[in-house]
Amino acid sequence: MTFSMYDTSVPALKRMLNNLAAILVKAAEHAASKKIDPGVFINARLFPDMFPLSRQVQIATDQAKGCAARLAGVDIPGFADNEATFDELQARIAKTIAFLDSFKAQQIDGSEERDIVLQIHERKLEFKGQAYLLNWVLPNFYFHVTTAYNILRHHGVEIGKKDFLGG
Amino acid sequence: MTFSMYDTSVPALKRMLNNLAAILVKAAEHAASKKIDPGVFINARLFPDMFPLSRQVQIATDQAKGCAARLAGVDIPGFADNEATFDELQARIAKTIAFLDSFKAQQIDGSEERDIVLQIHERKLEFKGQAYLLNWVLPNFYFHVTTAYNILRHHGVEIGKKDFLGG
Repeated sequence: MTFSMYDTSVPALKRMLNNLAAILVKAAEHAASKKIDPGVFINARLFPDMFPLSRQVQIATDQAKGCAARLAGVDIPGFADNEATFDELQARIAKTIAFLDSFKAQQIDGSEERDIVLQIHERKLEFKGQAYLLNWVLPNFYFHVTTAYNILRHHGVEIGKKDFLGG
Repeated sequence: MTFSMYDTSVPALKRMLNNLAAILVKAAEHAASKKIDPGVFINARLFPDMFPLSRQVQIATDQAKGCAARLAGVDIPGFADNEATFDELQARIAKTIAFLDSFKAQQIDGSEERDIVLQIHERKLEFKGQAYLLNWVLPNFYFHVTTAYNILRHHGVEIGKKDFLGG
């Protein structure tokens, strides 16, 4: 077995996106069973100037699709960032997983030294592929998946670490 | 450059532990400047049945030292899990980083197929080294570092994503 850039990115990202989707199913069920407007959860935050749940899911999926596309050197599909319901967030996650599924390992393996440039507002960040994956994508991706989980947990949805880690 | 088990574990874990230490410095300064008992933050949680900040830091460091030790096949140093102040949490992080620094890449590289067995209460989890790192250590480690961040952010400490990601 060879440990590779693909192994460390696409399957790991897919796995966590599937776990996030399952967590959002539980959140939607919780809202329905308690007769709480689902928007309460979609717009919930841990602090006034933190992003709400919807944006956490958007950024997590952005990190995943951006990672695969940049490491493989293909265009990143643009999403409208307008999801406002659990169904729309699920659709976004499903589109992201379908995009990840379109990659073969050989498109991403060997990208350790690929030049990656991110333009974030006025900041230009430059990485080699390996540092981009390990020091940018994975911390950011896990940050937003965990924060989505924490927002729901803080708002009383009955989920646990097993839901986060998956099967 | 060869992408390896060591690259994906020890330097990434160290990097995030240093970021976590810097975040805890800001939290201690915040407590001092607002004249809030530091224990309020050390014992803060996002939900009554979630772990407090101290335990989040303990588990994050456990994941880091357990990862390096198990992948290299050496004993895991035991810590007493009794940290109750910011200084004690910093000491735990520093001990963990010093332990990580004791590993050479060749002790961990090639551990993809090593058998790893975790005994968690009555559950016995068996992994190969690669799955242990990618599907267990990294999700768990990032979960607890992010949750430590989220607890502090939720309780008003002025930290941001840059503190989480580091330099």
